[in-house]
Parts: sequence; structure tokens; C-alpha cells
Amino acid sequence: MYKRQQLLNTELQEKVNQFKKLDEKITHLNSVLALADWDQKVMAPKKGRSLFANSIGTLSTEIFKLSISKEMGELLGVLTAEDQFEQLDHVTKAIVRERNNFYKQSKSIPTELYNEYIVLTANANNAWEEARETNNFKVFLPFLERIVEIKKQFTEYYGYEGHPYNALLNEYEPGLTVEKLDPLFEELRRSSIDLLNRIKLSLSKPNGDIFERLYNPEVQKEFNKFILPLIGFDMNAGRLDETVHPFAQTINTGDVRITTRYLEDNVRSAIFGTIHEAGHGIYEQNINPELEGTSICSGASFGIHESQSRFLENMVGRSEEFWNFFYQDLQEHFPDQLGKLDVNDFYGAINIVEPSFIRVEADELTYNLHIMLRYEIEKGLISREIAVKDLPNVWNEKMKEYLGIVPPTDTLGVLQDVHWSFGGLGYFPSYSLGNLYAAQILNTIKKELPDFYGHIERGEFDAIQSWLKEKIHQYGSIYTPDELIKKITGESLNATYLVNYLEDKYSKVYQL
Amino acid sequence: MYKRQQLLNTELQEKVNQFKKLDEKITHLNSVLALADWDQKVMAPKKGRSLFANSIGTLSTEIFKLSISKEMGELLGVLTAEDQFEQLDHVTKAIVRERNNFYKQSKSIPTELYNEYIVLTANANNAWEEARETNNFKVFLPFLERIVEIKKQFTEYYGYEGHPYNALLNEYEPGLTVEKLDPLFEELRRSSIDLLNRIKLSLSKPNGDIFERLYNPEVQKEFNKFILPLIGFDMNAGRLDETVHPFAQTINTGDVRITTRYLEDNVRSAIFGTIHEAGHGIYEQNINPELEGTSICSGASFGIHESQSRFLENMVGRSEEFWNFFYQDLQEHFPDQLGKLDVNDFYGAINIVEPSFIRVEADELTYNLHIMLRYEIEKGLISREIAVKDLPNVWNEKMKEYLGIVPPTDTLGVLQDVHWSFGGLGYFPSYSLGNLYAAQILNTIKKELPDFYGHIERGEFDAIQSWLKEKIHQYGSIYTPDELIKKITGESLNATYLVNYLEDKYSKVYQL
Repeated sequence: MYKRQQLLNTELQEKVNQFKKLDEKITHLNSVLALADWDQKVMAPKKGRSLFANSIGTLSTEIFKLSISKEMGELLGVLTAEDQFEQLDHVTKAIVRERNNFYKQSKSIPTELYNEYIVLTANANNAWEEARETNNFKVFLPFLERIVEIKKQFTEYYGYEGHPYNALLNEYEPGLTVEKLDPLFEELRRSSIDLLNRIKLSLSKPNGDIFERLYNPEVQKEFNKFILPLIGFDMNAGRLDETVHPFAQTINTGDVRITTRYLEDNVRSAIFGTIHEAGHGIYEQNINPELEGTSICSGASFGIHESQSRFLENMVGRSEEFWNFFYQDLQEHFPDQLGKLDVNDFYGAINIVEPSFIRVEADELTYNLHIMLRYEIEKGLISREIAVKDLPNVWNEKMKEYLGIVPPTDTLGVLQDVHWSFGGLGYFPSYSLGNLYAAQILNTIKKELPDFYGHIERGEFDAIQSWLKEKIHQYGSIYTPDELIKKITGESLNATYLVNYLEDKYSKVYQL
Repeated sequence: MYKRQQLLNTELQEKVNQFKKLDEKITHLNSVLALADWDQKVMAPKKGRSLFANSIGTLSTEIFKLSISKEMGELLGVLTAEDQFEQLDHVTKAIVRERNNFYKQSKSIPTELYNEYIVLTANANNAWEEARETNNFKVFLPFLERIVEIKKQFTEYYGYEGHPYNALLNEYEPGLTVEKLDPLFEELRRSSIDLLNRIKLSLSKPNGDIFERLYNPEVQKEFNKFILPLIGFDMNAGRLDETVHPFAQTINTGDVRITTRYLEDNVRSAIFGTIHEAGHGIYEQNINPELEGTSICSGASFGIHESQSRFLENMVGRSEEFWNFFYQDLQEHFPDQLGKLDVNDFYGAINIVEPSFIRVEADELTYNLHIMLRYEIEKGLISREIAVKDLPNVWNEKMKEYLGIVPPTDTLGVLQDVHWSFGGLGYFPSYSLGNLYAAQILNTIKKELPDFYGHIERGEFDAIQSWLKEKIHQYGSIYTPDELIKKITGESLNATYLVNYLEDKYSKVYQL
């Protein structure tokens, strides 16, 4: 009896080794792909890019083939069988879970449809760019209609319970459903609109004139490079570069690359953009190196990832204490622009709330309204309650309802985001989930690190980053988002903390 | 009868398509690998590099596996069969030739030995770095001994006629043998040593004081970025970056990246380094785009490649006419250092001949002596006439014999080059082959483009680059080096042209 058990274990162990080796191969190739992707956005010369797209295509195809290979299928078949799965350690379980999700999803889509989707989204991106540049939604319309149609088919292939949109949400935030999210967003929307209305009536408004001034991009660059390592980003394990659209790209835990942009007429863009991307970057730099070379060596979900960037950008970077520490340095970099402005007025200026057309430029409060608008639209598209051709109107109506303003052009409205052109329906909620998670995490860290704001005020980010590393970062995607937020805060995600955070913050800023 | 022939052709065509598809896949993956390699040298942060080595290893292994796969073997079996091969067009023939060479060579090495070699060379590089830094040959010794031993075994597996070193030469310069090279090098060595001795006795020596001065690296950078596009490097199809060891890396014909270094106390290093790498880069930018995505979309050999960098660096870049055009610009960049020096004296200064310890800093004349020293040593190592442990002594003795000087340390001697640490025995001759090819090509271009130096003097590089493109660059590696040099110049490689070029040039510079 003992002997047979041993034998089984040895066989299982062999399967586990084989599985991990295959997962490692895919992970390694994915890290090369990530590097290639970064390079084409940041470094590659113009003439090489269209040629290199073929190389990237070939590598992607090879990776995809490995991920849905017969070998992968057989190994997952063995390892997901209940009695076998239970014998695995928790890291292996997580890898099996992630690989199995991808395998099942990918296998569920007929190859022809998938190939059509790949070609379609590549072309849709060009169409979207043209549509946005020429303010002509019609150029993008046929592409978006087909994308929505295919995404709708995907939901049927993936399978879902409840709302069909759940199948798409699950790609970005595993386990999240419309049924869970609707009440959270409803609470957040009501309180946000209420708060926004009170802010509009406030007689004590911060003055944003300083942001009308010009700030030398070279000096901005210097300031950004100065603060980046101080807030916890390891410059020996990453880079900061410039791109029109800032992003973070992980090659491995020792090589996490972020980008920012320096606009002469918008000094906030670089500062808060850099801090935001640093939040993403620090998360990946701090994952337990033992997970290196596995597919779970990355953030737990898009929402959890965004929580780390939002936490650093907003909860830390837009706090009074942060600028009590850094403002003098910023003044020294820009004596002409800021020399006469005191830190309190600066704090007010960076926390001005103002409904605006463009999501990526929105303040902390109205940002979520932008997201909820997109979420409502996506749900409607997938349930066929909204037709793609009606989107410009629907968009403008919802803008009026949520933010009280209507964009004068589609370029400033429905065409502003790249996401739909690459088929990223289900992605937008992650941004507000990030804010929700971040506020809930803030509530916990304030209890567990009682001098939280004191640390910020003294420019000591070590204790904060260590806490985040211990509680969140180190785990990569061992835990599902729901498991993780419960582990950190003791409860599932709820809206109360963000609602309270926004209420507290803006009550002070606007003396409500 | 007709019908059967048709059928055969269709079948053959299918095999050709299958073969080209496989070759394309390998080429695409190789271009990603090339990018990754460039990135790790130029961009990657410190902590990521050792981790990323695993990713690079995985991708390399996949590429290697495809190159020696059963599918590749079967296709090559069909396509190299004489009657089939003859039916192929000349491009396909060249691809088959290249793939078949690689296949046969790789298949000949037992997997275990190959794996040992990969790990060994990775570690040897670290050992070499340490040895060089600490001037301690013993640290590198055991690694180099094993490398030489394995290389020796490789020669037996590869097979060879004549000298065993031929098997290694063939990797870098297909078709070249010790038997062909020895007399060329012998002629070049004798004439170079003779010329060097006469130069030593010359009473009319150029003055190199200007190179003792400091040159602001930022201004150097400006000057380099100014000349690079003018001499024919397409900045929309390439990049110029900085590394300690300059190199050129091709991603595709639209993306060729070169690097240089700016040393405050050595203004020559960047100027001639940049021109040199530009020569490599322009070659690859000018390959016929129809070869894109095939394994022959690269230079014909290491020697031919080097001929293009040497030609631009030395025959063009160190000519009087080049500086008649560019010197005023250089003076304007460095008025304090060069304002009072006239162009003739500058020309003399950049053509000073002086025996020195370090190969990469050697002048046009003594450079080849450095190479021949390494060539003699490598032959001796492979034929076991020289023991690795005796290398420091052998090195110093040969330095004395060839250049009349003895390096005071091994760091300045036997440890100066990286090549042996990666197993690159057989590589060094390429450098002097480059000079030999370049001089022979110069002789031809002067005949076919009679106003050759006039073009340079007027800063018109178009006609020269067009000639090089038409005669050399466009072909990639369709032709073998010997076929190509015959096609360009009407004869096989010989030493006369370089010997005469050096004699003519230095007779004038030193008024011999």
C-alpha cells in the first residue's frame, strides 16, 4: 500500500515537473515578447517596425501554440483532476489555475474566428486612429461592430453564469461579475455625483492658475528622475523612458520598465503619470523572486495592479504629506512658476475637481464616473441593448447625466480611448476597481502602520513599500483578487472605503 | 512524360515553400533574439540581465531546435539532392546552402558536448572579466583550456581537409583555409614590418598633440550625430546608442542599430568607431528587401562585413578628402582644441603609426600585426603546438617580434580581447580579411567611379554608397565570400592591394 502511494506520488511529481518546465518555457518566451513590445514602442526606428511586426507575430504564434498544445492539455488534464490537484502545493495550484483558465478559454474559440479577430483588431487600431484624428466615428464603426459581434460570440464560447458580460470581466478580474459589481458601482456613482454637486456649489475653490504656466520638460525630467527612486522604484531593476502614451512593461522582476511624457504646458501629467506607473512597476519589482520564470510572476489581476498605481499616485502622491516633503524640491526646480505659491495652495491645485471630457486627465473623483459610463455602455453592447452605431449619442447622453457636460466632438468623446480597438471590452472596470481596492487597502494600512502619513511626510517610503510588498506584491498571482483582498483587509471588496475617502478628502479641500 | 515532370515540379515547389516557411520562422525568431541581445547590452537594467539570460537561453534553444529539426533535415535532404538542387532559383539555392551548412555542423556535435560548451562559455565570460580586471590570467586559464579542448573536438566533428583550424575558419569565412590564408598573411606581415621599421626611422613625423586634449563628450555626440546620416546611414532605419564596447546589431533591414562610445580623452575613438559601425550598418540597411525574412538577409561573411566597416572607416574616413570636407565642421565643434590646426596636420595626426598594446586602438598598419599574432596563436592552440597555460609568454614574445613592444600586464596583453571567452576561435582573421577585401574593393571602385575621391571631397557619398549597394550590399549572403569578391573585383582575394595601399598612404604621411 505504501509503495503504491509512493509510486503515484513519483508519477505525479514527474507530471508536475514537466508542467512547470512547459510553463517556464512559455514564461521565458513571453518575457522576450514583452521586451520586443516595449522596444517597438520606445526604441525602434520607424522603418523597422512594420517588418518587425512579422517577427513579433511569429513569436506570439509559437507561444500561443505552446499554451494550447497537446502536451499542455494532457498535463492539465492530469493536474486538474481533483485528487491530484489537492496534492499540489499552493504555488503549483495557482500556476495550474492560470494555465488552465487560459487553455480552456483559448481552446473554446474556433481557430478561424480567433484568426479573424487577430487581423480585425490589428486593422481596427488603424481605423480608430484615423477616426480619432478626423473626428469621424463612421471610419471606426464597421470595425467596432464586428469586434463587438465577435466578443459577444466569445462570451458564448467561454460560457458564463448571469450576465454575458461576466465572461469578459473574468478575463481581467477573475471571479468578478456584473452582479457583484453593479451595487458597488451604484453606491460609488450616487455618492460621487452627490459629492460633485456639492463641490460645484462650494465657495472655497482651489486656484489652478499655476498649471496654466509653462514648465521646461528637461527640468520636469530631472524632477521625475529625482523622486522615482525615493518613492520606492528600484532604478537598478527598471528604467524610465518617454512615450506619448505612458505605460509599464515587465520583462522580469529585475527589469520593469515604465514610461512617462513631459508636456511643457502640463506639469501634472509627468509627475502623476510617473508616480502612477511607478506604482505598477514597484508591484512587479517586489514579487517574490522564487516565482520568477512562472506564469504567476505578475500582478494578481488588472484591478489589483491598478490599485497599486492608484494607491501611489492618489492616496500617497496627492496627499498633503507627500508635498510637505517634496514641494520644496519642486519649487527649487521651478522657482519662476512656483516660488511664490505655498504648499497648501499647491495641494489644493493638484486636487481640483472639474468635470472634463478626457478620462486620462480626470481628477480622482470624476475619473470613476468616466469608467462607469464605459462599463454601462459595454454591458449594453454585449447584451445588445445598445447598438454600436448609436454609441456617439449614448456616450454624450451619459456624459450629460454623469458629469453634466457634453463633448463637442467624438474625438473628445466616444473615440478617445484605444481599448475597444484592440477588443478590450471588460477592461475599463479595472481602473475603478483599482480605486476601490486602493481605498480599502489604505484603510487597512492606516491601522497596521499607524504613522502612515508621518512616514510620507518624512519621505520615508520604506515602511510603506515593505508593508505593500509583504501583504500584496510578493504573492504575484498566487491568490485570486478576491482571495487577496480578503487576506489583506479581512473582507471582500466594497465601496464604503472609497466613498468615505473621497468624502473626507474633498470635504477638506473644498471646505464642504 | 510531360505530366510526370509537372507533378515532380509541383511536389518540389511544395517542399520549397515548406522549407522557406521554416527558414522564415527561424529568421523571425532570430531577429527577436538579435533585439533582445542588443537590449541587454544597451538598455537593460543591471538586476534584470542575469534573469533575462534564461529567457534568451530558452529562445535560443527553440531556434536551435528548429534549425536542426527533423522537418529541416527532411527538407534539406530533398532540396540538396543534386537534380532537385539544380532546379532551384539562385536565392533559394543560397538559403539551402546556408541552412545546410548550419544543419550539418550542428548535427555533428553531440548534444551533451554542445550543452557543456554553452554553459562553459557563459561562465568563461565572467571569469575573463574578472581575470582582466585583476590582471590574473590564472582565473581565466581553466575555462580557456576547456574551451580550446572543446573547440579542438568540434574541429574533429565538423571535419576538415588540411589544417584542423580550417574547420573553425570556415565558420566565419566559408571556404577559407590556412593554406590560402598563410601566404596572404605572410606577404602582409613581411611588408608591414618592413614599412613599420621605415616609419620608425622617418624624420617627418605627424604631431599627435591634439589628441592629448580633452573633448567634451556631449559635443562629440553632436558631431557624430551630424556626420552619421551624411555618410549614408539611414537614421529612420537605425539607431546610434552608447556602449563601452561599440557594435552593430541588425534587427531587420529597416532597423539596424549601432553603438559608439564618447571618451573625453580620446576624440578619435568615437569618430572612427562611429564611422566603422556605420559601415557595418549601411551594409545591412542596403540588403535587397526581397531577402527580408530569409536567413541570407545578412552580410556574406564576417570578413566581407568587416571590409565594409574598414572601407568606410579607413579608406574613406581616414582620407585627406574626407577631412577636406568635414574638418571645418569638426573645428567648429571644437574651436579651442582644433581652431589653430590646419587640415593637413589633422590628417597627419589621425594617421600616426605607433606600435601599441591594445588591438582596438591600433592604427591601420599595426592593426593587422595584432591580428596575425592572434591567428598564429589560435592555429597553435588547435594544433596543440601551443599550450593554453603558456599563452601569456607566447603573447609577449610575439608582441616583441611583430611590434617591438611587450605589454607590462596581461590585462594589456593576452587578456584584452573578449573573443576567446565566447569560444570565438577563428574569428580574429576576419578583421584583417576585412582590410584585405577593402583594399581590393577600393582598387576596383577607383576604376569604376573615377572621381571617387572627388565625391568624398565634396561630401557626396551617394554615388559611393550606390556603388557599394549595387556591387555588394544588395546581395546579402547570396554569394559566398570568394564568389562575391570575384564578382566585384574579377579576382580572388590577394594581399597586393592592401600592401600597396599601405605603402602609398604611409609613404606620403611619413615622407618615406
